[in-house]
Amino acid sequence: MSVAKPVIVLVRPQLGQNIGKAARAMLNFGLTEMRLVAPRDGWPNPDAGPAASGADIVLEQAQVFETTEAAIADCSMVFASTVRRRDLVMPVVDPEAMAERIAGSSGRSAILFGPERSGLETEDVALAQAIVTVPINPDFGSLNLAQAVILLAYEWSKRTELAQPPAKELEEVAPHGELDGLIGQLDDELVAKGYFHPPSRTQATRNTIRTIFTKTGWSSREVKAVRGIIRALVDPARPRD
Amino acid sequence: MSVAKPVIVLVRPQLGQNIGKAARAMLNFGLTEMRLVAPRDGWPNPDAGPAASGADIVLEQAQVFETTEAAIADCSMVFASTVRRRDLVMPVVDPEAMAERIAGSSGRSAILFGPERSGLETEDVALAQAIVTVPINPDFGSLNLAQAVILLAYEWSKRTELAQPPAKELEEVAPHGELDGLIGQLDDELVAKGYFHPPSRTQATRNTIRTIFTKTGWSSREVKAVRGIIRALVDPARPRD
Repeated sequence: MSVAKPVIVLVRPQLGQNIGKAARAMLNFGLTEMRLVAPRDGWPNPDAGPAASGADIVLEQAQVFETTEAAIADCSMVFASTVRRRDLVMPVVDPEAMAERIAGSSGRSAILFGPERSGLETEDVALAQAIVTVPINPDFGSLNLAQAVILLAYEWSKRTELAQPPAKELEEVAPHGELDGLIGQLDDELVAKGYFHPPSRTQATRNTIRTIFTKTGWSSREVKAVRGIIRALVDPARPRD
Repeated sequence: MSVAKPVIVLVRPQLGQNIGKAARAMLNFGLTEMRLVAPRDGWPNPDAGPAASGADIVLEQAQVFETTEAAIADCSMVFASTVRRRDLVMPVVDPEAMAERIAGSSGRSAILFGPERSGLETEDVALAQAIVTVPINPDFGSLNLAQAVILLAYEWSKRTELAQPPAKELEEVAPHGELDGLIGQLDDELVAKGYFHPPSRTQATRNTIRTIFTKTGWSSREVKAVRGIIRALVDPARPRD
């Protein structure tokens, strides 16, 4: 039995060496699909290969995207690997719970990792259904990028030998791109209605809206239905029959 | 609850840098006791500190022994971290089973790691009760010393207080009555817009809407936000500022 492999998404990675180390960490546990969002030093990067210690196939197949949204457009379940964030109200899971959810999902899944120095931006974290945090020593938390990747890849790999068919979901969760379409439509309509004010709160409000709609687990059919509802709501009122 | 911490024993480690990285890996998961058996380049080693990224306490307290036997003399349970060995008939456990045995043991425990290039000698492995092997990709096994240490330290830490599941920042799901309020408001607005037609489909459409909004898992705060969004959508468009 095979369990769908999560995509590893490195958001704005800085050093090619760290991209190579992440590839090596992935392949140790059978993960092969790496996506890079706006790598700082471009791609390909000559420092990545030597650090990959032979995991060249991961680097050769790596895909580059301009935005995080584009990198996860075909993924229905997205985790953000980061420390706990006080600025976002989101579910926080440990690596084991993440692995369990990935194994139980029928669609594609992705795990986001931020730049080495600063970690994921709020806007990137808000794209995910949940934060995944490795519980570490509160007095010494010093996980580098490749270490975070290897721990999550290891935890995922522990599920792969469990010959359990993916949990049957009534309907598959819609790919992320469809949810983006819904959120974009809603945003346009809310802008037209002057909903976002004051301007200083606009980004926070947008993040909240994204979280609210990302957590729904709606299927493609349900996303379409909600888009129809939004269209109906903004229509001028019709006379009753 | 506290669980006895295993001692990490590096047998004939070669590079100071790798000793430092192992210390960093340990401290991330709360392990502080490192023992070094005949380090190739002596001890202390100036390359260790910079690689430890602040885990200096582990290096400062590291003890040096001439033989593996001496390093584990006070330990009642010893694991040898290595790939499976055909030359020895010994139990082989995975990291999870190792952690379970350590947690269930009343005496001190130790985990042995071999030199970077060659791994543990048969004589060292034979000192252990069991071999611990991280199950890795059979086509690409490339774990370095610090990676092996971090995976075993992580698995051990899951049994300790570090591993209490992260406090769920997930807000409580709103009481059903609040969701009913939202669905009622939406229904009123959709009726006003003439959304439900033909009449023969009205009940089925209402059921669909109820399912869509019931599955969201929204909190009270989120239900309120969505009600505000609905109000904004049905408002007449305001002139842009």
